[in-house]
Amino acid sequence: MQTKLLGKQTVIFKHRPTIISTYTVSGPKEKDSLFSPYFDLILENDDWEMDSYEKAERKMMEHTIFCAIERAGLHQNQVDALICGDLMNQIISSSFAARKFDTTYIGLFGACSTMAETLAVGACLVDGGYFNNVACATCSHFSTAERQFRYPLELGNQRPPTSQWTVTGSGCAILSSSGIGPQISMATFGKVTDYGVVDVNNMGAAMAPAAMNTLISHFNDTYTTPNDYDLIITGDLGKLGSEILIDLMENKGYKLGQNYIDCGHAIFNKNQHTQQGGSGCGCSALLFNSYFMKCLKEKKYKKILFMATGALLSPTSSFQGESVPSIAHAIVIENVNQ
Amino acid sequence: MQTKLLGKQTVIFKHRPTIISTYTVSGPKEKDSLFSPYFDLILENDDWEMDSYEKAERKMMEHTIFCAIERAGLHQNQVDALICGDLMNQIISSSFAARKFDTTYIGLFGACSTMAETLAVGACLVDGGYFNNVACATCSHFSTAERQFRYPLELGNQRPPTSQWTVTGSGCAILSSSGIGPQISMATFGKVTDYGVVDVNNMGAAMAPAAMNTLISHFNDTYTTPNDYDLIITGDLGKLGSEILIDLMENKGYKLGQNYIDCGHAIFNKNQHTQQGGSGCGCSALLFNSYFMKCLKEKKYKKILFMATGALLSPTSSFQGESVPSIAHAIVIENVNQ
Repeated sequence: MQTKLLGKQTVIFKHRPTIISTYTVSGPKEKDSLFSPYFDLILENDDWEMDSYEKAERKMMEHTIFCAIERAGLHQNQVDALICGDLMNQIISSSFAARKFDTTYIGLFGACSTMAETLAVGACLVDGGYFNNVACATCSHFSTAERQFRYPLELGNQRPPTSQWTVTGSGCAILSSSGIGPQISMATFGKVTDYGVVDVNNMGAAMAPAAMNTLISHFNDTYTTPNDYDLIITGDLGKLGSEILIDLMENKGYKLGQNYIDCGHAIFNKNQHTQQGGSGCGCSALLFNSYFMKCLKEKKYKKILFMATGALLSPTSSFQGESVPSIAHAIVIENVNQ
Repeated sequence: MQTKLLGKQTVIFKHRPTIISTYTVSGPKEKDSLFSPYFDLILENDDWEMDSYEKAERKMMEHTIFCAIERAGLHQNQVDALICGDLMNQIISSSFAARKFDTTYIGLFGACSTMAETLAVGACLVDGGYFNNVACATCSHFSTAERQFRYPLELGNQRPPTSQWTVTGSGCAILSSSGIGPQISMATFGKVTDYGVVDVNNMGAAMAPAAMNTLISHFNDTYTTPNDYDLIITGDLGKLGSEILIDLMENKGYKLGQNYIDCGHAIFNKNQHTQQGGSGCGCSALLFNSYFMKCLKEKKYKKILFMATGALLSPTSSFQGESVPSIAHAIVIENVNQ
């Protein structure tokens, strides 16, 4: 066997797939993010001259994948698979974007954990020799998510203090069996965790236990601690959710310190009135594929753990009185001397 | 590298994952199917004593996975991953079922191609040595799909002649790196194909071109023809869709003859008034994991190609005037002497 199954949840990669390029597109509200200087394209209008928000979201996805492939110096026919997912019912942003590419397509659904899920699955498929180059991508859009998951936009509902703001953005990473760039050395797949949170406006609290489970499994499987990583990044727990994660981890004997950051907590500034911060697949996709990848490439960080969390609910499940099952998938990216 | 990438779309497995067990649950209408003697459990009521059809669908999924694991002689903690998907928004049948298992979970979305998609991805992950045992599962339910994708059940709409009937059923296959059973030798991943069909009541016509593309890619990649297979099974093209596929293939110089069968066309009998036949993830999952697996195990067939097709639309995309992009994934299962 080529790779070793360290524990029940973590796999290590012998042929460490390389992230040879990334690309990001953000919406206009995200322009005021501290991280916006690192986004590749910032839209001036969140409809991007399309006649629906759903079509705008899909256009973001298409553009992001196109540009990531181009930046990698590849022709489209050199990309063996698109591995994508998003928040839309039947992941239409991904599937409709995929018809623009003459490439095999593997659709995933992991809600806001999608960026990490696509990278973890993609890394297995490249490491195992099944594909040479794969594009891992996801996206989200405030206006499509809001009207699908919550209320019509025109209603102008008040937002509860525990809510988060779905990020309009997309990110794509090209994984390759060769080339230069940071490498994915491990992946820890998550288990579905449900602590009984039923408040659909408190996703951070629902997802924090899933984040804790995956983090602890990762540390146990790999005999590491938080101190072994220059940076630990979570997806979109938001301010409250990431504070809950810090507390939960402390109860289990792990201290998440200065080397811990949550994309949802960090993406918007305090004047943007997003309550607990950002959410959506696009949140971690945007920051991971822009600022954090830049830091890795510039050797600011040597080894980071990137874990995106997802709340696996639907409006139907909530209407039927269900709680919110959640999941978190993690990957480790290392910067080797090249 | 452990495996060889034959073409752009087909991978072959060096450590051919074994299908060590399968299990199926069907709804009451499916009891009148010719294949029902091979289903493991047939429900008497399609709500299965749950207070919503969605919860009944989820219960089918849970039960199917539980029983497939048990039949494999495994404890739950010996299963390394659940690889699942379904038709529901945010694949809630899969994700909510997964919280009942202490196992990592990889959610996929491929519409009605899901059974083949989970087996193809699962086979890569087992062949590559990342996991020892994985459960690949999917399900669909007439009453949840009907009200989500089409009309309220109470409306009693007439069904157009080109329509198909969503199968109530679920199927699970346990793939293992060891053990006895038919083995997956290859997988051909599909590309998203869109011939511009906008009639959401004619899924067979929308999916047939995707089926043709994947079949031809498979034959080209592997230097085979339809005659090299004892049986070629498609998912749920239905009567009309499978006739279109036969025509399309004939135009390309391939004759699909007596060794070709479509699960959607075959599952219901003519007196069941399903127009073009069955559809839904559960359609091919039900027949593949019952009758066809039994035939393989009894050495009636030595080598079969199983290809499930999916229509990647959502009601939102159709309301916005979009056509129906489709996909087909295929796997080859071989019965080696053991």
